[in-house]
Amino acid sequence: MGPDIVRDFSNDHSALALNTATLGHNLEGHGAGWSPEQVIDACAERGYGGIVFWRREVGTRAQEIGDRVRAAGMQVVGLCRTPFLTGPLVPGGHDAIMDDFFASIDMAAGLGASVLTIVTGGPEPRLKPLIESQKILADRIALAAPYAAERGVNLALEPLNPVYGGNRTCVMTVADALRVCDMVGAPNLGVAVDVYHVWWDTTLPDALAKAGQRILGYHLCDWLADTSDMLLDRGMMGDGVADLKGIRSAVEAAGYRGLCEVEIFSSQNWWQREPTEVLDTVVDRFRSVC
Amino acid sequence: MGPDIVRDFSNDHSALALNTATLGHNLEGHGAGWSPEQVIDACAERGYGGIVFWRREVGTRAQEIGDRVRAAGMQVVGLCRTPFLTGPLVPGGHDAIMDDFFASIDMAAGLGASVLTIVTGGPEPRLKPLIESQKILADRIALAAPYAAERGVNLALEPLNPVYGGNRTCVMTVADALRVCDMVGAPNLGVAVDVYHVWWDTTLPDALAKAGQRILGYHLCDWLADTSDMLLDRGMMGDGVADLKGIRSAVEAAGYRGLCEVEIFSSQNWWQREPTEVLDTVVDRFRSVC
Repeated sequence: MGPDIVRDFSNDHSALALNTATLGHNLEGHGAGWSPEQVIDACAERGYGGIVFWRREVGTRAQEIGDRVRAAGMQVVGLCRTPFLTGPLVPGGHDAIMDDFFASIDMAAGLGASVLTIVTGGPEPRLKPLIESQKILADRIALAAPYAAERGVNLALEPLNPVYGGNRTCVMTVADALRVCDMVGAPNLGVAVDVYHVWWDTTLPDALAKAGQRILGYHLCDWLADTSDMLLDRGMMGDGVADLKGIRSAVEAAGYRGLCEVEIFSSQNWWQREPTEVLDTVVDRFRSVC
Repeated sequence: MGPDIVRDFSNDHSALALNTATLGHNLEGHGAGWSPEQVIDACAERGYGGIVFWRREVGTRAQEIGDRVRAAGMQVVGLCRTPFLTGPLVPGGHDAIMDDFFASIDMAAGLGASVLTIVTGGPEPRLKPLIESQKILADRIALAAPYAAERGVNLALEPLNPVYGGNRTCVMTVADALRVCDMVGAPNLGVAVDVYHVWWDTTLPDALAKAGQRILGYHLCDWLADTSDMLLDRGMMGDGVADLKGIRSAVEAAGYRGLCEVEIFSSQNWWQREPTEVLDTVVDRFRSVC
């Protein structure tokens, strides 16, 4: 098991993928209002190896966008993301969550994306021990994993920084994610490792070694020493305190050979800049500090 | 080893201590501009078992304030806190840090506080693997621990939520704190367990069991599902998602018999209320949900 994209981790930046969030995909009126086609062309020109899209950008054009990426010589590395699978009730409850989960799988399959990212949602209301929410999460993933497998889609469970533990995640560490993987036991379920979320974890090398081939994605940015916003103040690689080379070494040592996906939410800095400058900076930093 | 305050964990709220931060100690013009004497009297009236002060409130009156607390039938449970021991250089460098560390120990001794809380400071600049910053932290604690021991002061290393990992802490979990304790090897060094910082950690029961008698403090508040501020939006017990009863059980099972210290930084909610209302609510919630 594992993503079907295999690259060497050389200093060649074809191992680099862009997550479109890095261009401020949800900031109205910004240059990052670029169409998927503009993003694809700009990444291809710069030698990126792949792109990760968000559902809102894909809409009904999954096949078309996927083909365009491949025609440009790149891969659709992933799709962001499933709906929250746990947490406060949404209208329609469990059935509505699962319908949207299946829809996200269909879109990933349409794009030809090998990986669909799972952001779990927060703790279930009034269910205090966090592991109880993880069990509900596991049950819901188990219902969808075979459907995804039939469509060639791997599911990457992404632990989020504990600061999101109130309402966005019930999986805080790679070890948490592996516990849920073990509960589900599906061959197409693994883990997405995002340095923003896990950089602080001194047990990370051990957890990554245990994860091994279950690492389905590796996400880059940096943790700024003076982070000013919990959601939208991620740093460019090299501008923060995360041990990027050390984490990448541990991810490699565990056997990961997929692309490195740059995902920077930065409403006051990088989203204010020209997308071309951002894309060039990402390449420079990837070669120099990652 | 352990704090010299021993209480049963009954439903008697003499096991309750107030950390004065809960009354908005640093919000100018607020009712919480109460003098230490006012805080002492209000806590004693309500049957609190102890108080934890901050250095700025104590100034040169350590002995006087400590005596007043004891005359009111309570304990000075602790003092907040050491200076940051790691992180970006301060004027005066290492020597200035250590001088202030020793001064905080002197104040704790003067108060008759059995515990001085260590908030470590962030990662050392340009020293990427976090464990390297922990080693520097351990070296500095080792220089001060005997001085504290001679004065009857225990040092409680407090892991902080990973969201503070950029600039306030290099110790994120109880397991991290125990690693540093092991590096130092001082009999008067232990761990402060604050639910705000550790509630999300599914390995916490194991870490607490390992900590055993090294647990020197237990701090209460709650993690609000929709936390709006990284520093000043802590919840009153019962208003959030943390498993307060579960964590307390684990702390008790590990052998902790000290007081439960309520520490709620809440600039937009609890700090806006009358201190008497806050103190009464703390008692109610302590009895009902902790």
